[in-house]
Amino acid sequence: MTNLEKIAFVGVGRMGANMARRLKDSGFTVAAVYDVHTPAAQELAQELGGTVATELKTVTASADVIITVVTDDRAMKSIFTGGLLTGAKGKLFINCATVTPAIHEWVQQRCQAKGAQSLEACMASSITQARQGTLYLMCGGEREAFDRALPILEKLGTSPRYIGAAGKAAQVKALVNMVMNANTAALAEGLGLGDALGLDLTMLREVFSQTGARSGVLQTDGEDMQNRDHACFFSAAHAAKDSGIALKLAKAQHLNLPLAAATKKQYDRMVQAGLGGLDKSGIAELTFKGRGKGVGTGN
Amino acid sequence: MTNLEKIAFVGVGRMGANMARRLKDSGFTVAAVYDVHTPAAQELAQELGGTVATELKTVTASADVIITVVTDDRAMKSIFTGGLLTGAKGKLFINCATVTPAIHEWVQQRCQAKGAQSLEACMASSITQARQGTLYLMCGGEREAFDRALPILEKLGTSPRYIGAAGKAAQVKALVNMVMNANTAALAEGLGLGDALGLDLTMLREVFSQTGARSGVLQTDGEDMQNRDHACFFSAAHAAKDSGIALKLAKAQHLNLPLAAATKKQYDRMVQAGLGGLDKSGIAELTFKGRGKGVGTGN
Repeated sequence: MTNLEKIAFVGVGRMGANMARRLKDSGFTVAAVYDVHTPAAQELAQELGGTVATELKTVTASADVIITVVTDDRAMKSIFTGGLLTGAKGKLFINCATVTPAIHEWVQQRCQAKGAQSLEACMASSITQARQGTLYLMCGGEREAFDRALPILEKLGTSPRYIGAAGKAAQVKALVNMVMNANTAALAEGLGLGDALGLDLTMLREVFSQTGARSGVLQTDGEDMQNRDHACFFSAAHAAKDSGIALKLAKAQHLNLPLAAATKKQYDRMVQAGLGGLDKSGIAELTFKGRGKGVGTGN
Repeated sequence: MTNLEKIAFVGVGRMGANMARRLKDSGFTVAAVYDVHTPAAQELAQELGGTVATELKTVTASADVIITVVTDDRAMKSIFTGGLLTGAKGKLFINCATVTPAIHEWVQQRCQAKGAQSLEACMASSITQARQGTLYLMCGGEREAFDRALPILEKLGTSPRYIGAAGKAAQVKALVNMVMNANTAALAEGLGLGDALGLDLTMLREVFSQTGARSGVLQTDGEDMQNRDHACFFSAAHAAKDSGIALKLAKAQHLNLPLAAATKKQYDRMVQAGLGGLDKSGIAELTFKGRGKGVGTGN
């Protein structure tokens, strides 16, 4: 364990912080952390024994590998034009945010121009998996960057998967979330209507699980929809964003995807009603009778 | 095996015929079969050694238990007003078609008025399962009727399930199919967009299966969508009908279900384009670039 590369983090929200904890537990040095929300960075640095960076160039200077877990396209652009590439030669940037696939290509070009490497590492899992090191990681970029990142990726996830060129993993991730979100919206409708008909929802979920209605989201979100337990693992706002990314890709391909569009509309309604911070299972608040006061009836 | 009740069938399409074969294999006497499409009934009667009934009252006279597997509400109404209840006292009618829940209540009332019993036995499986006796059966009606039917149901399915009063099983079935159809439509969109983006679909299906995008229809329909193998197990026309039943239930409850509505629209488009006879997986013909010529682009 002597040749481990030093790590720094940009973006230590719930995902990023748990990934940092996991790597620290696995023997890595988390040399610096940075977050636009400074108190979060301070707390985590104290916990993990690293420093809080207040400038992006300090982050890059402090480590060999910089892991970025920011919120969206805008944040990605802003860190990579805002100092993160200062003194970046020889460094590896691993980018874990779910962003538009084209952003990953743009980041790779900028990194390569500075003599740095970049890898997109899209995560199709959530906070618990981040802490336990069981993330499902889909990677895109140069094969060489993937190989260099592997000792780190293997501590974060069970079997990191190389998908292809930069942006390809983000495409796959967008498709995963698009389908997952639609299945979630459909499940909420099924349980909502079942509830309105006076059916026992525990029975109904069991029948779903034994028939063609079964799905991953039935396992992860079904009981929460029934119990209105919408503590956030993957927010409705993120669901709206991710379905939106997929719909943009579809538009560019002149494809009409009515289910994805209907799903995005539902998650947009949640955001508009101030429910964007609920877990994606909160979409059931739109489809159960007597729930979701003030959410409006849609169209 | 001496006290087995004699059985007759009304409706021997692919499902009904295979159920009859299975019961014959299991030691039951299939005394008579009836179908509006007479040649189908003649062939099956010859195969199973029963008689072809040309009148509904003959079906009822020939057996203790009459299993009906007809296509829709109209067909159910027409057989139960068209002679099937003549001499029905003491007989048991097991009704397996997917029809509007209210029809099952109506059938039960008519049967009870004649001193007969009725049971709805909704099937959430397909032709192969019918032949093998592994149907997933959801039953609604009087408990007594369920108990009487059990020796037969146990040969048709693995663990027949008593759901509740007449119509309740049909409600659950409608919900199962509504969610299944929406998941199918969403999967077709995910694979269609993946294909347009040049992603390897075998890889994409594997990623789906390991992430939140996993579902029953991914297992049953994913590969078929990729290979355009739409040999019919559960037709697009049936999918349109079943989602329609669920949407009517929702309307009566003043619930707005946009995913179910978008799904029905897609299956309606298939029917309008003359593709209603394809398997439900054929919905991928609407979402893959370069497929489905003449299907129109939707809206």
